[in-house]
Amino acid sequence: MKIALTGALLASALVLPLAVTAGDFSPYVDSQGGISRPTDFRTNFVHLGSYAVLDEKSASRGLHDVYTEKASAEHYRKTGKFLDGATLVKEIRKLETSAMTTGNPVVWGSDAAVWFVMVKDAKGRFASNPLWGDGWGWALFKADAPAKNVAVSYEADCMGCHVPAAKTDRVFIQGYPTLTQH
Amino acid sequence: MKIALTGALLASALVLPLAVTAGDFSPYVDSQGGISRPTDFRTNFVHLGSYAVLDEKSASRGLHDVYTEKASAEHYRKTGKFLDGATLVKEIRKLETSAMTTGNPVVWGSDAAVWFVMVKDAKGRFASNPLWGDGWGWALFKADAPAKNVAVSYEADCMGCHVPAAKTDRVFIQGYPTLTQH
Repeated sequence: MKIALTGALLASALVLPLAVTAGDFSPYVDSQGGISRPTDFRTNFVHLGSYAVLDEKSASRGLHDVYTEKASAEHYRKTGKFLDGATLVKEIRKLETSAMTTGNPVVWGSDAAVWFVMVKDAKGRFASNPLWGDGWGWALFKADAPAKNVAVSYEADCMGCHVPAAKTDRVFIQGYPTLTQH
Repeated sequence: MKIALTGALLASALVLPLAVTAGDFSPYVDSQGGISRPTDFRTNFVHLGSYAVLDEKSASRGLHDVYTEKASAEHYRKTGKFLDGATLVKEIRKLETSAMTTGNPVVWGSDAAVWFVMVKDAKGRFASNPLWGDGWGWALFKADAPAKNVAVSYEADCMGCHVPAAKTDRVFIQGYPTLTQH
């Protein structure tokens, strides 16, 4: 029985490398650099911080909640850098406004509208994929088809907004206290 | 060796009940109902949601980020009720305002100013403690002395703001998508 168990364990250990491909550094990235949306981030990721975009004319109006893996946040606090394979999820929810007992006005988020996903790539794995650039993979998912990445090009769809954060690895860390304190 | 180990395990099991007091249902509550501030919530709790209080005249102006234990969030999603011993931490950070690439204006939080802590008590453990009422223990900590609960009375310091949430166990759940979806 002992020998059979050891054999089974050995077999599974040997099988694992067969499944490893170029994209297997992240559970959300396939071998071609295709990015899928983490669906468990509210339960299994930590919250980095939130921005509320109040601008009524902006397409980004909403509550922007940002999350990463616990290990990725801990790595950043220790090193000041994002871990290779770190995932950032920005959930944008519809902005609600009202008077509350805490003040008038107060804003908060209701239904999710959009998710931006970034996956840190410190090794330039997907140089020929237009959704990878400046050390990250970039993706956009919308609530009407949440499993489909609708971003086509990092340069056209993502880079513009992240120019001002070039010195902090394209991430607006001033709103994310979990990266610097807790 | 086996007997010695079993003896040690038995001894530790026997010692444990000696440390149990009336307050031991929560690591943040002592035997008299005194509440301490969780300091690890950004790393070990899950984010429920955030409110931004924009009112410039309000003492509560700021970004209000709310957190609870992962198990407490999962219990709520399953049952629609807060777990006995569930901890809610509301961190209030100073509100910053600026134009960003996402719009103008955008708001976010910077330095922490205040933490409100609520601990669910489904059994009425501390009826004689003025900081326990309506099924919760209530506490307030300020950044200049973050280990000191400065709330004196639930009725005077806390209840007023939470009146509108009476039907949802005193919690403003409309801003907390982690309790209903993820």
